[in-house]
This record gives sequence, structure tokens and C-alpha cells, in this order.
Amino acid sequence: MRNLTMMTDLYQLTMMYGYYKNNTHQRQAVFDLFFRRPNNNTAYAIAAGLEQVMDYIENLHFSEEDLEYLDSLNLFNQEFLDLLRDLRFTGDIHAVPEGTVVFPNEPMVRVKAPLIEAQLIETALLNMINHQTLIATKASRVVMAAQGGSVLEFGLRRAQGPDAGIYGARAAIIGGCSATSNVLTGQMFGIPVKGTHSHSWVMSFPDELSAFRAYADAFPDSCLLLVDTYNTLKSGIPNAITVFKELREKGYEPMGIRLDSGDLAYLSKKARQMLDEAGFHNAKIVASNDLDEELIWDLKAQGAKIDIFGVGTSLITSRGCPALGGVYKMSAEEIDKKMVPRIKISENPDKITNPGYKKVVRIYNGNRKAIADLIMLEGEEIDTGKPLTIFDPVDTWKRMTLFDYSIRELLVPVYLNGQRVYKNPDLMTIQEYAKTELDTLWDEYKRLKNPHVYKVDLSQKLYDLKQKLLEEYSMK
Amino acid sequence: MRNLTMMTDLYQLTMMYGYYKNNTHQRQAVFDLFFRRPNNNTAYAIAAGLEQVMDYIENLHFSEEDLEYLDSLNLFNQEFLDLLRDLRFTGDIHAVPEGTVVFPNEPMVRVKAPLIEAQLIETALLNMINHQTLIATKASRVVMAAQGGSVLEFGLRRAQGPDAGIYGARAAIIGGCSATSNVLTGQMFGIPVKGTHSHSWVMSFPDELSAFRAYADAFPDSCLLLVDTYNTLKSGIPNAITVFKELREKGYEPMGIRLDSGDLAYLSKKARQMLDEAGFHNAKIVASNDLDEELIWDLKAQGAKIDIFGVGTSLITSRGCPALGGVYKMSAEEIDKKMVPRIKISENPDKITNPGYKKVVRIYNGNRKAIADLIMLEGEEIDTGKPLTIFDPVDTWKRMTLFDYSIRELLVPVYLNGQRVYKNPDLMTIQEYAKTELDTLWDEYKRLKNPHVYKVDLSQKLYDLKQKLLEEYSMK
Repeated sequence: MRNLTMMTDLYQLTMMYGYYKNNTHQRQAVFDLFFRRPNNNTAYAIAAGLEQVMDYIENLHFSEEDLEYLDSLNLFNQEFLDLLRDLRFTGDIHAVPEGTVVFPNEPMVRVKAPLIEAQLIETALLNMINHQTLIATKASRVVMAAQGGSVLEFGLRRAQGPDAGIYGARAAIIGGCSATSNVLTGQMFGIPVKGTHSHSWVMSFPDELSAFRAYADAFPDSCLLLVDTYNTLKSGIPNAITVFKELREKGYEPMGIRLDSGDLAYLSKKARQMLDEAGFHNAKIVASNDLDEELIWDLKAQGAKIDIFGVGTSLITSRGCPALGGVYKMSAEEIDKKMVPRIKISENPDKITNPGYKKVVRIYNGNRKAIADLIMLEGEEIDTGKPLTIFDPVDTWKRMTLFDYSIRELLVPVYLNGQRVYKNPDLMTIQEYAKTELDTLWDEYKRLKNPHVYKVDLSQKLYDLKQKLLEEYSMK
Repeated sequence: MRNLTMMTDLYQLTMMYGYYKNNTHQRQAVFDLFFRRPNNNTAYAIAAGLEQVMDYIENLHFSEEDLEYLDSLNLFNQEFLDLLRDLRFTGDIHAVPEGTVVFPNEPMVRVKAPLIEAQLIETALLNMINHQTLIATKASRVVMAAQGGSVLEFGLRRAQGPDAGIYGARAAIIGGCSATSNVLTGQMFGIPVKGTHSHSWVMSFPDELSAFRAYADAFPDSCLLLVDTYNTLKSGIPNAITVFKELREKGYEPMGIRLDSGDLAYLSKKARQMLDEAGFHNAKIVASNDLDEELIWDLKAQGAKIDIFGVGTSLITSRGCPALGGVYKMSAEEIDKKMVPRIKISENPDKITNPGYKKVVRIYNGNRKAIADLIMLEGEEIDTGKPLTIFDPVDTWKRMTLFDYSIRELLVPVYLNGQRVYKNPDLMTIQEYAKTELDTLWDEYKRLKNPHVYKVDLSQKLYDLKQKLLEEYSMK
């Protein structure tokens, strides 16, 4: 397993040293990881990346070479480096399970640990959760646009480095993609891999027909042919049909064809017609070529006859919004054995944080549709036998009283006192869970453009605490 | 070293199997890696990622677990898997050195190898070269916008996974960034790392002044203070000046302050004035907060007094253009010991490839400014004692005859017959080389918007070959 302990921002180490010099490095602190805005035009996000965070935490330690390097920076004293030598994660981590639908401002991960540890891990947690949550969310949009068509993740060659390809494909599966072209991701996570041949295969034969025949010989029971190397309608599809007939004579059924250029709406309809007329009603039509959710939505609206969409660059880079702006903010510190809430003030009201040691509760109606999320202080309880009144934390006159509802706490324990207490499900189970999560959301929250904003409210106690701290601050 | 042999698209493996079944897998083939368009609004790209490609090639082999996994896919026979067990790279790779300025359509990497090997490595080569070239190019734009100010790479927490942070920071250094916040990249590549403290540091103390004092105690000779946690002008800068005076009394000079929010143009001018009035003329002003090349250009135009720019998300993700569309296309195959040129036809003329085993020559004028690049067939030579006429490959009537010029071949041997023959320079040497490369470009090619298009022409022989193949194709 890769040791990514050194994959942190230098300022985490300088702050850790500062806390050590100030003798507050062992003070327990609570940090929340959350985002303020999801992807462009998206109301929700699908949490992903926790498994890689756990791998990172399991392996957290500085090697001798790491310490030598840090020593060479001439920033730290030897006693501090000795402290780092023995540093392991000893705190608590609560997190929403991968595949959970999450909304702005609610903690996806909550860390309670000595300052020195909580600070060290910030950068890696943000890196992994930001990345995979971004791609899982993007994938869910693409899959929704395909309206029942399958989506294949094809982006490895355009991904931002190996991990972006490997873990981006993992996140794409969580978001609902059926398979990836990335063999390593398939191997690492036991998920389906797909792929057939490229244009260079066809170019390497004297003509298209012999290229198709050779491919069918190699893969008689999974023969999918790329038909646009020369002329899709005049040579590609007719040659494919010739080879499909030969296959059928040998007792095999072809898998289908792939279109990778041209007018996919028009070509797919013509292709479907030609395949049907030749008796290949079950042959699938795969389409690729710089697709994204909007193009797929548009193709479906035009009645394109595409069964499977291969999506590359736009999905693996989340083009249009290539970063989720997740942040990691201190919300409390333990001083004299008491949790003291902390708030970050900002001129920009959106950037003021929610103080205190908190949990997140999702509220469902009788039909198991999500109505709102409530951020509460950890000790608070809801008596579901009684009506519950919630209110908008900005426009507080917007109120709603619920009678028939159920609740669910989103954060689950992952580490307690440094011990791992959570087992991550396998990837296809996470995918299934993400699907049920999305099913609890009304379509209005999921549409591609201008989705309805989901309610994330504060409990009365948390609201009051925040107001009190803001007033204390304004008195200063 | 990580083994990324399995990090490939499944269709590479299915094609490799197809070539093996067709008994053409040992046929020598030539592939060119190039891009058709650089980043948005950019005329050039800065080549990067070759070192990681070499690491990948050095370690290229399938492990027994890899073969077991491939076997489990039920696509390949045992003889083929045995072939994979012994597969190593045995071919030639020529590439432009990292840091070289490159332009559309010219080969940045040229692979000549048995089909089975050349096909396998396509995906990893594209992944690594696309990513790092993208970020190095973006960084060069940001650095240019800073007009002599330093640029620090701060994006790790928003990068698309660990590698995007680690190798993105590496590429940012190639593109001209002075340092990174990423400690692991600093350790791996021996480059400067920078960072001080965040808002949470200030929040962890009873007040800002004690937070600043504690930081100055820990880092008396490198004290840089973040001044915007509460109120930049009313508390942040005055408190910083108080601490700077205390430091000076102890014999230390402060490093400066960082602004991370608000109106950076206005605040930096006020900050400069306050620091100067207090006698801290050498204290630097660092600014960060979602900066990119356009904002930096704009800040400079407004006379902002910023010495150092910290750039995160926009740089590390190349926001606005998060993928370089590099491709890898077959250009020749060896048949009966003769190199036979191959061309990829497309309805879209931009996507027609340049056939044959080719090299790239850069032409300079007497002042060592680059005038044009010429893609030529490998065997062609230029006699610089004679005038040289070049012409536009589309608008062929656009001609230019050169008299006083010098030339340089861009591709250098990296692997010959599977043996590594190239030693990559250290990263700071590559950065220096990239700077001299950019100096050979007139400013018109480097401006942020609507840059002039650099000439990439074809030699007469290559042009004629391409026309001949296109005509042969149209006869079919």
C-alpha cells in the first residue's frame, strides 16, 4: 500500500510544529469536512472516496527517509521530528457511507483527534473525498441523462494522471456507470471492464472487411465492431452485417457496433434500421465521441437509437466543474475537558461555519422520500412520535411542521480511538446503495438544469448557538 | 515503484489478442503522440510527463496476479497469457525533452515497436503526457500573467486524486512555479516547498495577536502571517506589524503577510502602505483566493502590490480546459522489411493524420527566435547553407523563403531496442530549460487571449506523400 503520509500541505506541518511549541498539539479538536456548493447545476453530491481515506489512515506514519527530508528543510527541531516518528492516528472519524446523497454545508466527514493529527490529515482527506465525490456526482448526472441506457467510463487516457483514471473510474461506478475501460480499476475493485477495438485495428489490415473478420475470429462470442473508420453507412455497417451473418452461421450472435464520429442521432437511427433489416435486432449500438450529460440528454430527445454510451473526457475530468470545493473547518476544541464550539467568521455570510460537535439527520416522509436534512448538535434527539418544526436558517420565517416522518442519522463511526470500526462494502454494493439513495430524492432535485434546492436546516439549538457566537464576535 | 502495466484500456488487450491470433503482433509499427489543439486560448504547450513514462516503461511487466485476473475475464487463451508473461518493451521511443515548447500536430513522442507492445503502452503514455503537459502549460500562463511575481502551487486539496496533486505540482514547477505546498512532491523531486498557517491556527488561540505571536515564536526567521481571519485592515495587518516589531527587536526580519479574501487589489495597496510606514519595506505580500491567470493579469493591471501569488484549484485542475486532447495514431507499419506509411482518414479534415516515420525540426532566425516548425520524413535533411522555402499545409499559396536561419531536431532518442538511452535532467534544470524555450517564442504567441498561431508546416516530401495517400483512398 502506498504511504501518502507526506502528501500534505507544508502549512499543516508548520502548524503542527507551532502547536507543539505552544504545547497545544494534544488538544482534542473537531473538524468538519463539507462543501458549500455542489457541481454546477447540481443540487446534491454522491459521497465517495472514504475507502481510500481509510487506506491512507491505516498506513499513516512517517518513515525515516521522510523525517530526514523534513529535517533538511531546517524548519523543525529534533524533538518534534521524534514526535512525528511515533505519530499514528488515535482519534475518531465519523463519515457518511460511500454512495450517500449529501448536500451543501452538512458534514460528510467529522474528525475528532489531537490537533496535531487532525491537522496532518486534512489535505489527504480533502484530496480524496473532493475528487471521488466530484466524479461520482458527475457520473450520476450522465447516467440519469441516459434514461436507462448503459454508460461506460472510457476516460483513462484523458484523466489527470494515473490516480484520476483509477479512482475516477471507481467513483464513476459508484455514480452508476455499468463498466469501465480501465483494466486496473477492474482488477482492483472487481468491477466489469469493457472494450473492443480502435481505428488503428482497422488501419492495420488491408481493408475494413478483413479487419472485422479478424476481430470476429478472435472474439466470436463478444464481437462489437467500430464502424466509422472509413464510411459508416456505406462501408462500416454493411461490412459489419456481412461479418455478423458469417458469425451467425457459425452459431454465434454478434454483440453490436460502435459509432465514434458523425451525427450520432442520425447514424444510430440508420444503423438500427440496417441491423434490424438484416435480422440483428439484438445487436447493440454503442456511441462515443466527446459525450456528456447534456449531449446524451439531447440525443435521447432526438430519438437516437443508442443502447450504450461511452463517456470519456467530460466524465473523468468533470469538465465544466473540475473540482469540488470541499473544505475542512474546525468546529470545536476540548478545553479543560469541555467541548468549546468554534466558528469561522467571514465577511461573506456563506463562508461562516456551523459551530459545535454536530450530527446530520435526514428526514423522510411516509413514502420514504427525503424532505430535508437537519444539522444538530451531537447530544440532541428527535422524538418521531411528536410533530417536528423545521425552519430555513437564513429566511427563518420559512417554516414547516412535519407529522408523519421518519429519520436517519447519516454519519456512522469509521474510526474510534484510532481503531477502524467500519468495513466498506464492495463497489457494486455501494453502487446499488447510491441508486437507492437517489431514489429517495424527488426528480426536481435531480434534473440537469436549475434543480430545486434541497433543504438543509439547523436545529433550534444549533441555530441559537451560532447566533450567540456571532453576537459575541460582533461585540469584540 | 508502482507497476502500472494493468493501467490500460481493455481494448488494447483485446486488440493485442486479435493481432496475436492474426499473427501480426510482432509486426513493427510506428505511432505518433500529438495533440490537435492546445489549451483554450493558448498557441503552444510545454511538454511534460516523460520521466513518469520512463518509470512506467522500466517497470512494464505483467505479474502472476495480473495474468490470473486477465484469465478470469474469459477473453484470452493460455498461450496469449504466456506471451504476456514475458512481454517487456523492446522498441524505440523518441520524444521531445520535458520543458520543450510544442505545437499542434507535431509528434511529441514517437514509438516504434512490435504492435503488441506499441498498443499496450498507448493508454499510460497518453494519460501521463496529457496530464502533465496540460498543467505545465497552464502554469506557464499563470506565471506569465504574474509578470515577474512568484507563483506558488497550492492545489493539492482540490486536485483530482493523489497523482493529480503530486505530478500536477511537478508539472507546475516545469511551467515556472517557484514552489509548491505539496511536501511529497518536494521530497520526490527536490523542489522548494512553501506554507505557513491557515485560519484554523488563528481560531485555535484566544485572539489573533496571541496566534501571531505563537507563530512568530515557532518560526522567527520565516514568519509569514495570514491577516484576514477577522478584519484585514483593522486587526490583521496592525497585529502583524506589532509582532513584526517584536521580531525585529529580537534580531529577526519578518517574511511578510498573506491575504486570502476580499478585494486583493485594494487590500494589497493598503497593506503595502501600512507595512512601509511601519518600516517593513522588505515584507512580502502574498495573495491567494481562487486566482487564475486572468485574475492575476487584472490585479497587475490595477497596480496591486502583490509579490507572490498562491494559485490552487484553477492551476491544479486547469479549470476551463481540464484535459489536453492528446492522441496516439499509427503512422507506419513495417511490412516485408519496408516501412509502409499509414494514414487515418476522417470526414473532418483536422482529424486526418500525417503519415510516415517522421521527425520535427524547429527553425530559428538569426536572433534565436522560433519561426516555424517543419514536420519531415525521418530520412530528409535540410542544408542550412541554402535558402529554405516553407508553405502552409492547408493554404499552400502562403509561402515563405528563409535565408539566415538555423535548425534543431526536437525528438531525441529515449529508448532504443528496449534500452533506456536518455537521462532526464532534474526538475529545476527542466524548469530553466522551459524558460529558455519560452524565450525563443515571440510574445504574440504567448499572450493570454487570441495568441498568434505558430506555423507548423510539412516538408514537400511529406506533403506529397499525404496527398498521394489521400488520392489513393478517394479512388477506393
